[in-house]
Amino acid sequence: MKVTVVGAGGNVGSTVSMAVAQRDFAKEVVMVDIVQEKDGDKIYPSKGRALDQWESSPIHQFDTKLTGTVDYEDTAGSDVCVITAGVPRKPGMSRDDLLEINANIVQDVTEKLVKHSPNTIIIVVSNPLDVMAQVALETSGFDSNRVMGMAGILDTARYRSFLAEEIGVSPKDIQALLLGGHGDTMVPLPRFTTVCGMPITQFIDEDKLEEIVDRTKGGGGELVNLMGTSAWYAPGAAAAQMVEAIMLDQNRVFPCAAHLNGEYGQENLFLGVPVKLGEGGIKEIIEVDLNDEEQQLLDESADHVHSVLKEFRQLMDK
Amino acid sequence: MKVTVVGAGGNVGSTVSMAVAQRDFAKEVVMVDIVQEKDGDKIYPSKGRALDQWESSPIHQFDTKLTGTVDYEDTAGSDVCVITAGVPRKPGMSRDDLLEINANIVQDVTEKLVKHSPNTIIIVVSNPLDVMAQVALETSGFDSNRVMGMAGILDTARYRSFLAEEIGVSPKDIQALLLGGHGDTMVPLPRFTTVCGMPITQFIDEDKLEEIVDRTKGGGGELVNLMGTSAWYAPGAAAAQMVEAIMLDQNRVFPCAAHLNGEYGQENLFLGVPVKLGEGGIKEIIEVDLNDEEQQLLDESADHVHSVLKEFRQLMDK
Amino acid sequence: MKVTVVGAGGNVGSTVSMAVAQRDFAKEVVMVDIVQEKDGDKIYPSKGRALDQWESSPIHQFDTKLTGTVDYEDTAGSDVCVITAGVPRKPGMSRDDLLEINANIVQDVTEKLVKHSPNTIIIVVSNPLDVMAQVALETSGFDSNRVMGMAGILDTARYRSFLAEEIGVSPKDIQALLLGGHGDTMVPLPRFTTVCGMPITQFIDEDKLEEIVDRTKGGGGELVNLMGTSAWYAPGAAAAQMVEAIMLDQNRVFPCAAHLNGEYGQENLFLGVPVKLGEGGIKEIIEVDLNDEEQQLLDESADHVHSVLKEFRQLMDK
Amino acid sequence: MKVTVVGAGGNVGSTVSMAVAQRDFAKEVVMVDIVQEKDGDKIYPSKGRALDQWESSPIHQFDTKLTGTVDYEDTAGSDVCVITAGVPRKPGMSRDDLLEINANIVQDVTEKLVKHSPNTIIIVVSNPLDVMAQVALETSGFDSNRVMGMAGILDTARYRSFLAEEIGVSPKDIQALLLGGHGDTMVPLPRFTTVCGMPITQFIDEDKLEEIVDRTKGGGGELVNLMGTSAWYAPGAAAAQMVEAIMLDQNRVFPCAAHLNGEYGQENLFLGVPVKLGEGGIKEIIEVDLNDEEQQLLDESADHVHSVLKEFRQLMDK
Repeated sequence: MKVTVVGAGGNVGSTVSMAVAQRDFAKEVVMVDIVQEKDGDKIYPSKGRALDQWESSPIHQFDTKLTGTVDYEDTAGSDVCVITAGVPRKPGMSRDDLLEINANIVQDVTEKLVKHSPNTIIIVVSNPLDVMAQVALETSGFDSNRVMGMAGILDTARYRSFLAEEIGVSPKDIQALLLGGHGDTMVPLPRFTTVCGMPITQFIDEDKLEEIVDRTKGGGGELVNLMGTSAWYAPGAAAAQMVEAIMLDQNRVFPCAAHLNGEYGQENLFLGVPVKLGEGGIKEIIEVDLNDEEQQLLDESADHVHSVLKEFRQLMDK
Repeated sequence: MKVTVVGAGGNVGSTVSMAVAQRDFAKEVVMVDIVQEKDGDKIYPSKGRALDQWESSPIHQFDTKLTGTVDYEDTAGSDVCVITAGVPRKPGMSRDDLLEINANIVQDVTEKLVKHSPNTIIIVVSNPLDVMAQVALETSGFDSNRVMGMAGILDTARYRSFLAEEIGVSPKDIQALLLGGHGDTMVPLPRFTTVCGMPITQFIDEDKLEEIVDRTKGGGGELVNLMGTSAWYAPGAAAAQMVEAIMLDQNRVFPCAAHLNGEYGQENLFLGVPVKLGEGGIKEIIEVDLNDEEQQLLDESADHVHSVLKEFRQLMDK
Repeated sequence: MKVTVVGAGGNVGSTVSMAVAQRDFAKEVVMVDIVQEKDGDKIYPSKGRALDQWESSPIHQFDTKLTGTVDYEDTAGSDVCVITAGVPRKPGMSRDDLLEINANIVQDVTEKLVKHSPNTIIIVVSNPLDVMAQVALETSGFDSNRVMGMAGILDTARYRSFLAEEIGVSPKDIQALLLGGHGDTMVPLPRFTTVCGMPITQFIDEDKLEEIVDRTKGGGGELVNLMGTSAWYAPGAAAAQMVEAIMLDQNRVFPCAAHLNGEYGQENLFLGVPVKLGEGGIKEIIEVDLNDEEQQLLDESADHVHSVLKEFRQLMDK
Repeated sequence: MKVTVVGAGGNVGSTVSMAVAQRDFAKEVVMVDIVQEKDGDKIYPSKGRALDQWESSPIHQFDTKLTGTVDYEDTAGSDVCVITAGVPRKPGMSRDDLLEINANIVQDVTEKLVKHSPNTIIIVVSNPLDVMAQVALETSGFDSNRVMGMAGILDTARYRSFLAEEIGVSPKDIQALLLGGHGDTMVPLPRFTTVCGMPITQFIDEDKLEEIVDRTKGGGGELVNLMGTSAWYAPGAAAAQMVEAIMLDQNRVFPCAAHLNGEYGQENLFLGVPVKLGEGGIKEIIEVDLNDEEQQLLDESADHVHSVLKEFRQLMDK
């Protein structure tokens, strides 16, 4: 079993790699990134991180071989590929600039991955997620079960950790589902949030719950404010869990960004919905009954994705 | 951190011990059992199992020292004690005989444990569970947060594993709560059964769910029929999870047999209810809102426990 | 990935199954055993144990599906098969009777396994080990890298656990190699016993070390005396570690019963030697330099295996 | 059980924290760091990393609570404190400048830690390690068993991972000991390097082994060259393993920087030697027999530490 992580010279990519390696089931993790420059010297961040991680194998007791590379030939025959490549938004960069730059990166990466691993499954982590997943899908020409985006597991993990702390119980005992986009257009589903199967509403009052939902929506920004950079521990863990579910055919039920073709009344876009993840990728998009309010929120979330997609297509057409 | 398991020459007791040891957080597990005879020779099953388990430590890579003993002095200073001692019902043995024999065993064991570990926490696994927990509580003179019975985690584990298989998803993604007694008087709560937070009813039809609830109620008997003896893998895992939650102060939310004093309208009896488990034992009995039907089933379950308790007190008064 | 364990209604077989399942990398473990009778009823021990183990999956959090069966068709396509079937020696049974009975069992089992999984790898645990491995090799017609016996990992695990206790260090930090047969003809190699790489002789005096070597040789008997039955925790863990090394292609270095064809000066017999275990089975028999005394002990061990083999062939020729 | 990590806004510190949390035995990890500035805004890196790590708890399934802080009061009652604080050498900074700056940091941190946790154990990771450990020892006034430095586990982990790759076996099966200082004055002990207990010299020729020893000596620099910054995965894993050994009283045998008082013929300095690590810190300094060449290398390593110490004392006297 072989995994490739693109952008593994960065924090999210290398966290995915390490989390997969520590679970010790894969034969190898190939960590791809570009050559960079620092103080006039060429550096190879993904080679360095791969080596540093491999050097921890006698301590953590794992056998998965981690290798850094700049050459896509080394990724040949990967079962799963995770794309974390992309640039963050920098001062002076317009939202459209960002969209264009990252779309070009994801397109380029996808082409190279698919060339060497035509049967692989692609997990997109690059932002803006829903559009980047669409780019990977269209570039790869894969069936939609084999291309997906990581957002929902991260959002629910944040939400669950906040709830665990607030009500004073183990994070292991909180289950939750969140739908829709990542961020402001996230669709909270307090009905589908439970503590050992019991409704969360038995443990917390409505105001506090709403506060936590809002904190979850702004979860990425909270960390940027604290650290001056984007988060990686929980995002990396979330993507690694998707890799594991697929490679070990676990039939895990997770919220993921999946390509909808009629489900939830949506057509041809990626949106966060519950899926069954196992061998071959998305085995099933789970259509849960939504009430009117929830469906409306999901529609708004979808509208938002559509509008970014449209903007994106206009950009790329230029 | 020190754990004692009484009855560890038997399958459930030694499974608890091994599961705790493999998690590799405790300093030692003391496995107590009586001397037995086999083919005219004295044998020491808990010493043998402790040694066999310890011999696996270089393979499983754990440091927890397992020791078998027949002497309660070796249990001194235990943080948690698990009582799995007791006889199974044999042909020709009346239900009352069984009750009397096991009550005497649990009483005797509790006295010895408490003498050497006055600050310990007691988890009872011996059957009939609700009465044996009462015996341990009354014998120990402990506050009721420090004495509890293991049944609900096992029942929900069975229920969850059946559901996982039926609907084809990972057992990791199913959460459930079951209340009341162990066996026929178990109170199913399909409302509190979820898949990644989503209601189980979105995944299975009512008839099939009822079938699985019935299978769960008879879960112990199903295994006796298959194996000719009682189960131990899931029971041992369940008790070990309680040990871990207490010793590592995890604030886990589990259904356990807890001593009720007004909660759920019940007085002075052990009944399966959700609790928060951590340092010091039961930190909280969680009172979840029940509808009329559920409350009625719980009352019937309580009536059953009361009647066995009454019978038991009459027996012991003779 | 699929594993089959034959004799999984017994303690060693079901311990192998559970240890593999808890590591949570395999898709399924098929537990085969025969129908048995108890008190006039038919029982299916491996079905019962498989179900009991599967019921622990929501607690131990694993996805590997355990299934009990009496039908070898269910084993089709197994990557690795572990044979633990066989009877223990009972009062009045001659050594030759035992040999004949178990050889017939292993022959029969091997035929059925190979029929349904022609590309599998076979790990033999049944006793007398070296002969049973030979039976499996000859019956299967497999190349010798695909048939091996489990003994050395168990013996070294015992030895390491005794040493850890004696010198007061973690079992994780003791490494050791033992060659030759299982039991009296075991070849101890104190030169190849280290604590974090340092010679064991820096930690223990010669007499005490010899005492521990002797205890290791009689390790199986010590447990029979204590428990009235053979051990299973460490044996099961040892076999599971071989399964993992092969299925995850870990290139682990272990002492195993391997078929020698010239190595160590031996021809056509199974003997405990260090091997590299990974994809495809035994990748390499490691020939370590022995001094004269060690080589002589190994020769004696080989002679013993040859003599039992000869006896066995005469028996089967009758 | 409570752990404090100082400098946890940096890579090594936060890796230690995460590795401890993922093992899920500690109650809490307090991550201390200073307030920093980025683009004119105040940022709190250790708060951000703590939150990001905690948000992964529902995915990685751990209960250890991670908290970031700038206030040492939050560290009160820590069982173990890890000091990773310090600055890296920047262009234009003399070696003496670096020494002085980091010594002042470690002194200041130690005072604050000891004030709030007078019974704690201190693990120093800051560089130059041997001097910084001395600073922590002298500042704390602790007995020397309670102050130690992390270097040997990291160096041996690198060495073992290189060997595993070179000879094609699992890193789990290679054991090794390296003594002396970190870097050029490291004392290689090929005699004490084994594969499953067998001498490494049976697996590799002398030239290649020497090459790997040299690579190990320059292991830190190799990663700086690749990444443009110091490593953190293996260093963090190494320190976390020391934390675990102490907190769970595992009696692990590791090479650590320990304060020598006569052992190995050295007085009043920290040097990498094998120790037994458990409750209370260093339970024993293991004096392994060295041959003349090895002893000479160790003496040279000690001389080097003495000279840096002397230089340091002159600096601080100014």
